Amino acid sequence: MCFMRKYSGRPVELDEVVVTDGFWKKEQELVENTTIGAVYDRFEETGRFEALKCEWKEGMPGKPHIFWESDITKWIEGAAYFLSKKRDPVLEEKIDILVDRMERYQDEDGYLNVYFTVVEPGERFVRRTDHELYCAGHLIEGAIAYAKATGKTKMLDIAVKYIDLIDRVFRIEHSAAFDTPGHEEIELALVKLYRYTGKERYKLLAEYFLDMRGKSARDSTYDFADQEHMQSHLPVRDQKTAEGHCVRALYLYSAMADMAMLNSEDALAEACQALFENITEKRIYITGGIGSTYRGESFTFDYDLPEYTAYNETCASIALTMFCKRMWLIEADGKYADWAERALYNTVLGGISLAGDSFYYENPLAADPRRNRFNSSRAQGLREHLPILERVKVFDCSCCPPNLIRMIGSIGEYMYSSSGDTIYTQCYMSGDAGICLGDQLIRLSQRTEYPMDGRVEIEVETKGVFKLALRIPNWCSDHRIMVNGEQCSCDIWHSYAILDRSWEKGDRVELILKMDTLFVEANRDVVDVAGRVAVMRGPLVYCAEGIDNEDLPLRDIRLDPGALPALGTRVIAGRTLPSLVLEGTLRPEMQGLYRRYTRNREKISLTMIPYFAWANRGITEMNTWFLAD
Amino acid sequence: MCFMRKYSGRPVELDEVVVTDGFWKKEQELVENTTIGAVYDRFEETGRFEALKCEWKEGMPGKPHIFWESDITKWIEGAAYFLSKKRDPVLEEKIDILVDRMERYQDEDGYLNVYFTVVEPGERFVRRTDHELYCAGHLIEGAIAYAKATGKTKMLDIAVKYIDLIDRVFRIEHSAAFDTPGHEEIELALVKLYRYTGKERYKLLAEYFLDMRGKSARDSTYDFADQEHMQSHLPVRDQKTAEGHCVRALYLYSAMADMAMLNSEDALAEACQALFENITEKRIYITGGIGSTYRGESFTFDYDLPEYTAYNETCASIALTMFCKRMWLIEADGKYADWAERALYNTVLGGISLAGDSFYYENPLAADPRRNRFNSSRAQGLREHLPILERVKVFDCSCCPPNLIRMIGSIGEYMYSSSGDTIYTQCYMSGDAGICLGDQLIRLSQRTEYPMDGRVEIEVETKGVFKLALRIPNWCSDHRIMVNGEQCSCDIWHSYAILDRSWEKGDRVELILKMDTLFVEANRDVVDVAGRVAVMRGPLVYCAEGIDNEDLPLRDIRLDPGALPALGTRVIAGRTLPSLVLEGTLRPEMQGLYRRYTRNREKISLTMIPYFAWANRGITEMNTWFLAD
Repeated sequence: MCFMRKYSGRPVELDEVVVTDGFWKKEQELVENTTIGAVYDRFEETGRFEALKCEWKEGMPGKPHIFWESDITKWIEGAAYFLSKKRDPVLEEKIDILVDRMERYQDEDGYLNVYFTVVEPGERFVRRTDHELYCAGHLIEGAIAYAKATGKTKMLDIAVKYIDLIDRVFRIEHSAAFDTPGHEEIELALVKLYRYTGKERYKLLAEYFLDMRGKSARDSTYDFADQEHMQSHLPVRDQKTAEGHCVRALYLYSAMADMAMLNSEDALAEACQALFENITEKRIYITGGIGSTYRGESFTFDYDLPEYTAYNETCASIALTMFCKRMWLIEADGKYADWAERALYNTVLGGISLAGDSFYYENPLAADPRRNRFNSSRAQGLREHLPILERVKVFDCSCCPPNLIRMIGSIGEYMYSSSGDTIYTQCYMSGDAGICLGDQLIRLSQRTEYPMDGRVEIEVETKGVFKLALRIPNWCSDHRIMVNGEQCSCDIWHSYAILDRSWEKGDRVELILKMDTLFVEANRDVVDVAGRVAVMRGPLVYCAEGIDNEDLPLRDIRLDPGALPALGTRVIAGRTLPSLVLEGTLRPEMQGLYRRYTRNREKISLTMIPYFAWANRGITEMNTWFLAD
Repeated sequence: MCFMRKYSGRPVELDEVVVTDGFWKKEQELVENTTIGAVYDRFEETGRFEALKCEWKEGMPGKPHIFWESDITKWIEGAAYFLSKKRDPVLEEKIDILVDRMERYQDEDGYLNVYFTVVEPGERFVRRTDHELYCAGHLIEGAIAYAKATGKTKMLDIAVKYIDLIDRVFRIEHSAAFDTPGHEEIELALVKLYRYTGKERYKLLAEYFLDMRGKSARDSTYDFADQEHMQSHLPVRDQKTAEGHCVRALYLYSAMADMAMLNSEDALAEACQALFENITEKRIYITGGIGSTYRGESFTFDYDLPEYTAYNETCASIALTMFCKRMWLIEADGKYADWAERALYNTVLGGISLAGDSFYYENPLAADPRRNRFNSSRAQGLREHLPILERVKVFDCSCCPPNLIRMIGSIGEYMYSSSGDTIYTQCYMSGDAGICLGDQLIRLSQRTEYPMDGRVEIEVETKGVFKLALRIPNWCSDHRIMVNGEQCSCDIWHSYAILDRSWEKGDRVELILKMDTLFVEANRDVVDVAGRVAVMRGPLVYCAEGIDNEDLPLRDIRLDPGALPALGTRVIAGRTLPSLVLEGTLRPEMQGLYRRYTRNREKISLTMIPYFAWANRGITEMNTWFLAD
């Protein structure tokens, strides 16, 4: 048996791994070849880069928005992850120009925010929810990533100068009008900055923001919102249910997990565990989406998971994945990677088109073009908020596209973690790693077609004594493990199969995860999907689109969870993707609205595709939860 | 066979019938003894009656609202229906005081609207949607009812003086800023006034308002709304789908049906038939509720019938019933009374508490206290609009309570209609009638416990030759008819069983409508209730409340439509009401959110009560559509 020593978890970071091929390499190539440039062009067109010149004046077009800078610095961070694997002078020049603009407009005292420089210069550090500190956080993250990738430190110097001002104003002088950010993000960025620079004061500032939250009388909110919306209804250690704006919440929880690790603090770690449990046992969609309502982009209440109006912001799933990556350091339990990959393969990837150039902010579980059509035909005052039916190239609030770039660019960080003499596999993907384990440097080479196939091969390229803890995903009912062709029976500990041995160079581990089609039902308190099932294969949730199932009323189809689905493929936007064909039944057509109940049913076949691939072929109906016999 | 001659339908009006006992007599007693007084007191408390003095000035409390007067005149109309059966000096004195106030503040030119007298006197006949003409319509209806009931004509004189002004300003001079009312109602009131006074100009004005609708360039709307919202997107004869605000729509369609009858006009009649068909085949709830959304209190699109957020304004169901009553004069088809009684017994009666003193504006199909609780815990800006879970005594916009008084007070008008030598039974209830049929006065005495029981007895109290057309409701799969104890086999023609004979005084007709419990399913395009059934017995839709089904997750219960329900009774708010106990199953409880689909089921019993009786025992979950095996 293997027990992780408390707070001994260690991340395996981007500089220790390289994604080599398979599913994620293709995603990275798409982002590298298309997304980075496409997002850059859209930001250019919309005046975001121009705004950095700080030349805007009242009456001019292109009025800067309070969070425009975070779009830019997140894009830089994402680009930097790719540069860290392959330098690119053209891309770097673009970034350097942006950094130069930042340098030029940075105030002497270090202040750096376009909006509060040219639009409301008198309102610095006054309005809690106006994203100043959020932007500062992303500036830090972008600066560190760019410095790590290129060795260029100008952006980092700018960031440090600004953070030193923030430290003075907030932590030392308390001269801002509020105490903690309305939109969290800077906390986890400060931890990164502390780790990167080793300077204690950044950790102190992160602690200050965490510890003051929920305790400050000066932390008022906008009229429309409440303290729950910004997770300041309680001191962070007392927060046990996930409340309010989901991205803010998960960025906060990520910082809390970071701090629990830094300080080996039980109270914070336990709050994080309780929050994770509340989310995953009461408030998450089967796709890994969080945020049951667009109102405040927020969590609602236990078991409230409406389908058509699910908000499920792409950034929220990214933030959840980031939180999971921290939680698996706190506690060796496969559930963290289970939910990380659930989000990654469904609502994170669902946020980007297969062509790589357009994006979803919201990721609903079902879509009805009739409803959207009616809605858009109504006068403005009579419209409801509905998720859009086609991805777009840029949003007014375009946080998700650059967040996808940095997520996919840093996906290698989700492969492994370590603790003491154990290496944990977290999310399976093809890649090479060199992992520091005490004084050993262990090289592993992983090859897999996951998530399309459940076979994973890991070659140990370094002689050494260590445990390899292979995660058995929660969707998997049966698995086999072989070492050098010989079957092993391993103890399963918190969803990890532990291989404890003295490894020789060239040892070959094969993990075969049986990947069946799975019919899943929800807790009966989830009123929205009572009587319905979702279909999964591996970590992929499947959905059906009208375009593949012409004339079938998707919501009325009853699937037979006893029948064996046929596996196939479907070419969508030039990519060959897995598909399923399932047998089901349908009630006969009728005129009018109501009739006596009949048991008559017509047989039909339903074609399903991975959820992440929906809405790549024009506007069409989509459904995830189906009636079941 | 019996064929109705076109446009020969004739209503059987309130002065020709008296409700004697049974279901509706109890409802009338409740309204007479409780509701009339309760609504009066609430209107008094909220300053509505005080406002009629026109003494309000800026800065004072009790600022009059643009539609307050319609609350008062509708209350007078309702009270008058009861006075028409039994005079009451105390009640009349209250009304006379209100009429005196109207007289005092009426302008010399006839203008009569409190709001535009004391709040914005410069804005008369300027803003189309500000309910001036709507209030004028209710003034007419109240005045006629009070004159008919008491012979007192002061209110009618006031109304006529105002209408003469409106006629001049709108029809003759076109000096108003718009051409047709934003909220319809005056059109059907003008038809009543024409019928009561015989004066052609009121018919001309009604025609003017109908014919100008959808054709006027001056009929703009509020910014938030659109022409569909006010049914002015098309000329009325071209309107074939029900659009916009439901009460406005159904008041308009009622006036269109009136005018079709007055003028024997096919184009208008056909538009009315198309609108009725669109509503009942595509856009109506099983409870007879209309209005799928609170946004604009309006129709949405075909088959869009969400449960929890159904708007289904009580007034809209009342207006639908009024429309049906007119349609069964245009066309002898049982479907009109089918839908009238569906609305009456479910969403109309659902609008009033069993104690008679509190009211619903909205009538949803399901209610979840968890959702309301969460919603009310949020900041104002983050709340969604949800139907309330307990009836209240008065609303800011309190149109429904007095509308219920006038509906229940005039329920006798829904018993019969005639055409040529045929008397049609429309809605069954215990009551006596003296019906003019050509030169015969036919007296009928009807006794029934309908809708609790399907047995109806009609005694013919006048010798005569006429046809009696007995409606066979659409919920009824089997019926028997006996005359003087002898079974008859009758032709069924458009849902009416025709008894064509020479009647003797004392002839006794017995109609036995087999009243089974009925499991009903919706068209498969109604995505919200796919896989679900509703339960009906007679015209009553049943629902289940949490309070009768402790700890059962109602949405997860699967009913067996093959099993025979047990009939019982339930005492609610002191009234003994029918109940049903049905067998069903439930999925086993679980921790967390998702698991592999299981076919395991636990057996449970579900108690159901009539929909109209819900929410009379505190806040509790409610559900109407259940999963079915």
